[in-house]
Amino acid sequence: MKIAILIYDGFTALDAIGPYEVLRSVPGWEVEFVGKTRGEVRTDSGAVGLCADRGMAEVTSAGILLVPGGSGNRELLEDRELLAWLREVDRTTTWTTSVCTGSLLLGAAGLLERRRATGHWLFLEQLREYGADPVGGRYVEDGKVITAAGVSAGIDMALYLVGREAGPEVAQAVQLGIEYDPDPPFDAGSPEKAPAAVVEAVSAIARDG
Amino acid sequence: MKIAILIYDGFTALDAIGPYEVLRSVPGWEVEFVGKTRGEVRTDSGAVGLCADRGMAEVTSAGILLVPGGSGNRELLEDRELLAWLREVDRTTTWTTSVCTGSLLLGAAGLLERRRATGHWLFLEQLREYGADPVGGRYVEDGKVITAAGVSAGIDMALYLVGREAGPEVAQAVQLGIEYDPDPPFDAGSPEKAPAAVVEAVSAIARDG
Repeated sequence: MKIAILIYDGFTALDAIGPYEVLRSVPGWEVEFVGKTRGEVRTDSGAVGLCADRGMAEVTSAGILLVPGGSGNRELLEDRELLAWLREVDRTTTWTTSVCTGSLLLGAAGLLERRRATGHWLFLEQLREYGADPVGGRYVEDGKVITAAGVSAGIDMALYLVGREAGPEVAQAVQLGIEYDPDPPFDAGSPEKAPAAVVEAVSAIARDG
Repeated sequence: MKIAILIYDGFTALDAIGPYEVLRSVPGWEVEFVGKTRGEVRTDSGAVGLCADRGMAEVTSAGILLVPGGSGNRELLEDRELLAWLREVDRTTTWTTSVCTGSLLLGAAGLLERRRATGHWLFLEQLREYGADPVGGRYVEDGKVITAAGVSAGIDMALYLVGREAGPEVAQAVQLGIEYDPDPPFDAGSPEKAPAAVVEAVSAIARDG
């Protein structure tokens, strides 16, 4: 299975690296990081760069396409060349997937029309602009499109995908290999679980920038 | 708080990027990726490179030092220059931390003597060679040293660290921001929970390379 992970300036590193670590652990599966062009791509924090080994022009197909989120993608929502590339690769995929606000990019490319989908909880409603039906959930499968919730949800989605494509034993081996037995010291990972004041504070930051 | 994350050829990307995504989300905290020298560093899979913006010679102190694991660190266990750098930075830190087999590097630097510590479940016993007491657990705090279990455990450890240093409300806001409400589709993230055949398969890969 060939996996293409799109990266762009301002993407969120864990959106991409969480699923990467799962998918690259499957024997025979091969991950490539694809930028608009080859070269260094900086994350949203600016604190680290990842290397895109391939540019969009070099990659025209994939078994799995994965689109991470990140504040840098807002200006890409009207990038015709990038959206055309997403549609082109999607025509070849077994699975087209996104993490966090990566679903906005899939939506802008027209790939979520009349599909149930998810994304970061702060940006769910925006999916309606693209004809999608925003539903909750850690990850949402509709046909060959799987969208995951915010940032860390890509790990869960990728394990699900490995289970579907390579079988549960392989997925369990990958989970054990990365010792994914989560035990967060707080229970505030969703707006339903976090204290109201924390939800308001995080919402305010997103609203006011 | 200044955070220095060491990266080296053959490190495991999620070991570094999981905690990075948590720590970089704290207002005022600043993360730097440090390589032996500046420039691209490839992960253990070879499928992606990260950019070290700083070389060791440029970074002589940190509030938090974080050392990820990865198969590439075996040859570093006798790298005098690197081990001396770890000791030098450790003298300045509030917290010295590791993820996965990063604890082997802390051990080789002499920083785990007579300390309780953890690491990837496959490499726990090796910590005894460095005078450490390998105990189980998602992360283990002993004095100012916190070691985390395999790969994904760095996310939990980093949230704990944010809670300790910046308070529980900030840690909860970070957890909500990265929507860390884990829900893996399988329950095989530790050798106690995974089916015996899966544990044996993963152990055999580690044994036989």
